[in-house]
Amino acid sequence: MTSKANLERWYDFVKAKDPSALDALLADDVTFYSPVVHTPQRGKMITSLYLGAAANVLGGDNFRYVGEYLSGDGAVIEFNTVIDGIEIDGIDMITWNTDGKITDFKVMVRPLKAVNKLHEMMAAMLAQFQKR
Amino acid sequence: MTSKANLERWYDFVKAKDPSALDALLADDVTFYSPVVHTPQRGKMITSLYLGAAANVLGGDNFRYVGEYLSGDGAVIEFNTVIDGIEIDGIDMITWNTDGKITDFKVMVRPLKAVNKLHEMMAAMLAQFQKR
Repeated sequence: MTSKANLERWYDFVKAKDPSALDALLADDVTFYSPVVHTPQRGKMITSLYLGAAANVLGGDNFRYVGEYLSGDGAVIEFNTVIDGIEIDGIDMITWNTDGKITDFKVMVRPLKAVNKLHEMMAAMLAQFQKR
Repeated sequence: MTSKANLERWYDFVKAKDPSALDALLADDVTFYSPVVHTPQRGKMITSLYLGAAANVLGGDNFRYVGEYLSGDGAVIEFNTVIDGIEIDGIDMITWNTDGKITDFKVMVRPLKAVNKLHEMMAAMLAQFQKR
């Protein structure tokens, strides 16, 4: 599948807001690269956890994809959102394997205030998860 | 010109390490978006200053472009570098006008440690400039 076709499936997923549909999109050995933490998070379970947390943190009413860049096996999509009055400008960098499954998902945001805000919110969400 | 052709001219500029060549690549109304600061920096002079500082801070021997994503009028290129032992993973997001001049140049980096490192180094460089 082309990157564009794979990307359309990602947009459909984001639009549908159905966390259970995430599993079918990810390769078993998918790696998540956080905007905050250096260490890559490997595997479907931890990536789902992070992407779920990220979706919860970022995916409010203000969230918009505003730009799209393609490569042979990947895409970079730019997003804007506002959380607690802090404007967040970021990108999702996604790579797919030949089966159309996501093997790498990287997030970067700017400016510094936005990174700090995500740090605070992601930490709170992951702490809550660990308490369950 | 295609984004790919414009991008090749950017790579040539980075390889040549000749700051005086930057002027010809930028549109008069170019805007620079810092990975650290929210406020966009408008105009050729301030953008040259920031890109020059960024090149000085980031462009050491460790600097490598490692990924490339294209759109109709722009590109995202991913880079890796190491500064004072801190691994920096970032992107340049560049938009060109129909004359092949850069109108927008945005930088994002991850993880948080890398943003903080850039913050510290860019502040020091810009302070030095202001003293001149």
